[in-house]
Amino acid sequence: MAEKNKFGAGIWLFGQFVDRYATDAYGPPVDTLQAIDRAGEVGELVALDVNYPFSDASITTTQVRAALERNQLEAIAITPAIYTREFQRGSFTNPDAAIRRKTIDLAKRAIEVAGELGAKYVKFWPGQDGHDYPFQADHAQIWEYAVSGVREIAEFSPQTQFAIEYKMKEPRVHITFSTASRTLLAIQEMGVNNVGIVLDFGHSLFAKETPADVLLLVQRHGKLTSVEVNDNWREWDDDLTVGSVHIIETLEFLHALRCINWQGPILLDQFPFREDPVAAARASIRTLKALDRLLDRVDLNQLKAAQDAQDALAAQRLIQNLLIND
Amino acid sequence: MAEKNKFGAGIWLFGQFVDRYATDAYGPPVDTLQAIDRAGEVGELVALDVNYPFSDASITTTQVRAALERNQLEAIAITPAIYTREFQRGSFTNPDAAIRRKTIDLAKRAIEVAGELGAKYVKFWPGQDGHDYPFQADHAQIWEYAVSGVREIAEFSPQTQFAIEYKMKEPRVHITFSTASRTLLAIQEMGVNNVGIVLDFGHSLFAKETPADVLLLVQRHGKLTSVEVNDNWREWDDDLTVGSVHIIETLEFLHALRCINWQGPILLDQFPFREDPVAAARASIRTLKALDRLLDRVDLNQLKAAQDAQDALAAQRLIQNLLIND
Amino acid sequence: MAEKNKFGAGIWLFGQFVDRYATDAYGPPVDTLQAIDRAGEVGELVALDVNYPFSDASITTTQVRAALERNQLEAIAITPAIYTREFQRGSFTNPDAAIRRKTIDLAKRAIEVAGELGAKYVKFWPGQDGHDYPFQADHAQIWEYAVSGVREIAEFSPQTQFAIEYKMKEPRVHITFSTASRTLLAIQEMGVNNVGIVLDFGHSLFAKETPADVLLLVQRHGKLTSVEVNDNWREWDDDLTVGSVHIIETLEFLHALRCINWQGPILLDQFPFREDPVAAARASIRTLKALDRLLDRVDLNQLKAAQDAQDALAAQRLIQNLLIND
Amino acid sequence: MAEKNKFGAGIWLFGQFVDRYATDAYGPPVDTLQAIDRAGEVGELVALDVNYPFSDASITTTQVRAALERNQLEAIAITPAIYTREFQRGSFTNPDAAIRRKTIDLAKRAIEVAGELGAKYVKFWPGQDGHDYPFQADHAQIWEYAVSGVREIAEFSPQTQFAIEYKMKEPRVHITFSTASRTLLAIQEMGVNNVGIVLDFGHSLFAKETPADVLLLVQRHGKLTSVEVNDNWREWDDDLTVGSVHIIETLEFLHALRCINWQGPILLDQFPFREDPVAAARASIRTLKALDRLLDRVDLNQLKAAQDAQDALAAQRLIQNLLIND
Repeated sequence: MAEKNKFGAGIWLFGQFVDRYATDAYGPPVDTLQAIDRAGEVGELVALDVNYPFSDASITTTQVRAALERNQLEAIAITPAIYTREFQRGSFTNPDAAIRRKTIDLAKRAIEVAGELGAKYVKFWPGQDGHDYPFQADHAQIWEYAVSGVREIAEFSPQTQFAIEYKMKEPRVHITFSTASRTLLAIQEMGVNNVGIVLDFGHSLFAKETPADVLLLVQRHGKLTSVEVNDNWREWDDDLTVGSVHIIETLEFLHALRCINWQGPILLDQFPFREDPVAAARASIRTLKALDRLLDRVDLNQLKAAQDAQDALAAQRLIQNLLIND
Repeated sequence: MAEKNKFGAGIWLFGQFVDRYATDAYGPPVDTLQAIDRAGEVGELVALDVNYPFSDASITTTQVRAALERNQLEAIAITPAIYTREFQRGSFTNPDAAIRRKTIDLAKRAIEVAGELGAKYVKFWPGQDGHDYPFQADHAQIWEYAVSGVREIAEFSPQTQFAIEYKMKEPRVHITFSTASRTLLAIQEMGVNNVGIVLDFGHSLFAKETPADVLLLVQRHGKLTSVEVNDNWREWDDDLTVGSVHIIETLEFLHALRCINWQGPILLDQFPFREDPVAAARASIRTLKALDRLLDRVDLNQLKAAQDAQDALAAQRLIQNLLIND
Repeated sequence: MAEKNKFGAGIWLFGQFVDRYATDAYGPPVDTLQAIDRAGEVGELVALDVNYPFSDASITTTQVRAALERNQLEAIAITPAIYTREFQRGSFTNPDAAIRRKTIDLAKRAIEVAGELGAKYVKFWPGQDGHDYPFQADHAQIWEYAVSGVREIAEFSPQTQFAIEYKMKEPRVHITFSTASRTLLAIQEMGVNNVGIVLDFGHSLFAKETPADVLLLVQRHGKLTSVEVNDNWREWDDDLTVGSVHIIETLEFLHALRCINWQGPILLDQFPFREDPVAAARASIRTLKALDRLLDRVDLNQLKAAQDAQDALAAQRLIQNLLIND
Repeated sequence: MAEKNKFGAGIWLFGQFVDRYATDAYGPPVDTLQAIDRAGEVGELVALDVNYPFSDASITTTQVRAALERNQLEAIAITPAIYTREFQRGSFTNPDAAIRRKTIDLAKRAIEVAGELGAKYVKFWPGQDGHDYPFQADHAQIWEYAVSGVREIAEFSPQTQFAIEYKMKEPRVHITFSTASRTLLAIQEMGVNNVGIVLDFGHSLFAKETPADVLLLVQRHGKLTSVEVNDNWREWDDDLTVGSVHIIETLEFLHALRCINWQGPILLDQFPFREDPVAAARASIRTLKALDRLLDRVDLNQLKAAQDAQDALAAQRLIQNLLIND
């Protein structure tokens, strides 16, 4: 039986959600400290990915540390907000050199905060980098900006671990770091060894990848920094509760995590627009734990035999025995 | 506890598969009689949807009836092959009036065969009707051809039940009868009462419908003639084994079938290119039966309460209790 | 040569854009009156679809009328905001009867405002109605709520023209009024004759419809109230400038509008997150006018001959002669 | 003004098409020699990608060479048929070592034929390599097979140029070499320098890539062996005529080919199921030539300025001036 999984979450799960229609937001404002307290309420989280800057300029790192401590949470990651109004035309790939510089500067402040909070990695989610229209961009230039921007930060702080969370689109219609393979290529071009990947199960699904497959590919290249989980309908980053649609592929993903002996926490990345965030987090954790217990019951020799033969029906039967065996 | 489900299949599940690459086919030729015997081997099928013409001109209806009888199978449907070479530019909507006439003629022969074999309906699957390119077609004309073609047959044989199996594409890149709603509209325009719908779970998935939802919609309009099941990856009619990817939505579909008190058999529509067809059919039936037993354990009052409140987390918990309760 | 097209826009094109990442918005706040002035700046618009309530409670209908007049704009439609925080769990289909009642009440106020501003129709865009998760909803109940809610308003004010703008998703992951056919079915069930459809080109594209085809279908059923245009990448409502990606299908759509002798304005529905709204509107109008001039040069007899024969290559050649004839 | 483009085609464009429904094929049989003569009829082709084995065992390389010569065609590539019945469960990744060996052996024969016909590269299109179902495969093993299989052949014949044509799916539901980036990663792992990529515009579209973007990425890595063109509806490899749907992105792709100073022929990869192949090839070439002439008229300084500013509206205006300037 495997070590028990640990769980974390992106702090945004506990924040205020807005979209382009409900511009008055899906709920009241939640500041960074309140969001941490909500995360603590879940009762099973050990780690948070924390956005920087914090919700209000008045909130200090000391206050954040205190809030984390009183909720027995670690700040596993700091994610600089390089996707807000200022960065709407790009962060690393912005056509304006001054904004590209601001991106670097914000990343450097995030490195400091990560140091102060003891975070394991600084995450880049460059959701505004890319293009919207045909002919809009010199794609070679965009790629060069993206690669060299991340490289500059990685070289600036070689003792810091960085990670890129790739995603195919939103808010940019076409995001530069779109898939696992493309991000691995970019990291190779950087020529640094402190940049890895945050593999988000949902981003992988709607990039038309097989999540378990790319997990192994990223691991093979030694670049797996963290994993995030949720679910969606394969066309968009719906950020639904874990296993709500693709329970079998979620199970395959958890199995792949066992195969690589993953020790880090599994982070929830959800946007429960219409549900209570604490309840939604608990639901996902409950599912993850139950799926993990199911995996304890798989006969790994039989599964290996089925997979060595690429025998779909045999492999399915083993898995369905877990789910629908009554 | 519900009545036990009965199962049937499209006879093509047991035939020879070809595609545009493996033009030497995925297996040896299988004639109509051999396919029926293979269906019999499954051991749990009671009904077949049989293509007409049969595989060889020499095979008679008498032989087919005998083969069905020795395998304790009924011919629930006859499906005229209005999608072969002759109909490549359309059956009901072919620009050539002579081919439109041949479509009607073939349908009439299918009605006779249905009579001889005691089939419950004649199914139209007009997979070549539609268009491939922008500007190729006068869409109003295509629609008129499609509606009036089916109407003509329905009026020709008012005592026969007909059904249209809609599908979004393949082989035509855009098929005229693409979705449940569109097909319901067409049936209304026909102004006849002996044309219904065959709702294929997989076609529904990749038309971006929610299968359980459109099942209820078709039923609401009194037009549900039959149902077919399989699975796919939401972009194409992969015709995989039941529940292999979308087990939760399959369960929701089976629940919807209970809600409407569906008494007919559930037909398998699979193309196991690389698996043994008999084993693939058995795997799907095994899954369907297991899912059905799970549904016996749902507390319907609790489910109704959750759905009345549109409470996603509560509804999910009830369903996940079935699947991952260990 | 056809009558020249007239153009309008949704007022939101000129407002402030927010999304779930750039929660500080893509630009400064814009109130209803300012948005109207921006629309006036475009110089070629004659009509606006105006959201109600206005941006601030202090803005009066009188002020709005004055702003429209000084910009030589008519309010062609009033669109009640039934998709904000209060309606996050649905408007017509909300599980809470009190919210369903508020939806009706807001619609009634929109009818009054439409009367005061001389608008031609009241538009419903029920983007929060539907479901997010499997098993979340009793689909039959949701459908019943949607149909009966719109019917109640239509019967309340039989002299008012209403229209439903269908869309497959966003913000709801699965929206009830998802496609043209489904919405036509719902309107038929309502049994009223003052509810039509607003056909949005982009919504049609990403619902996997052929826009020109469903335009003719909606017209055939006598339910075409208005049309909106934009572009996207076929998976999401990107609301890009007209013809930026699908220029050939845009041309086919404009051709279909000529076929039905469409006299109303063509409305722009864009979200130029990263572009100047006035410039983006002008770009779309410039494209629409240029495409319209191209259509003047089509030999309609040749096109009819090609379409009667469903001859893709001949039809394409005619169209490409317009675009790439140098 | 640029050098004029040269054109080639996959020989399959001129062959017999079959699919899983029209199992009696869309036309009569066409042997390899007849297909070459059909290609010659087009009148503007200089190169063919030729499948091996030829259509009949009796056809010799000498006959093929003669057919090519009399039609003034070169065999630019030899593509071994590693996707037929024998390879249905995979070629390089087949679970059966004997079939993996047969793949290697067939590739070696293709190398010989390529030598005899003077072909520039041997192309692998491993359309059966991958998986269909969750849990079916040990993804790490599949990847290892794919990488080591191609490597073995590349090392066996270091003087031969090889190329992988990636594709997301069909006939396998999930193909191993799915995207440009993933294939680049695999080639890096091979550690050889005689394996490149055939970039198919349509495969790129439905892999959700931007074709012009990945063209530059593959070139940046020095791995662009050849390019193929066609069109589709972004979800499937429809293999339509060039520019029939995505004319703007086709133009962007041709512009990118100019940017890298591409000198090789542009190959047509079409499956005109319902059109005359010679006419369909001519239509695509006519479009390609016309688009190329349009590109002569682009003000490259203005385009560069627009792209440096990532100014979508300015870039679009330049391109639309080419297409809709009357």
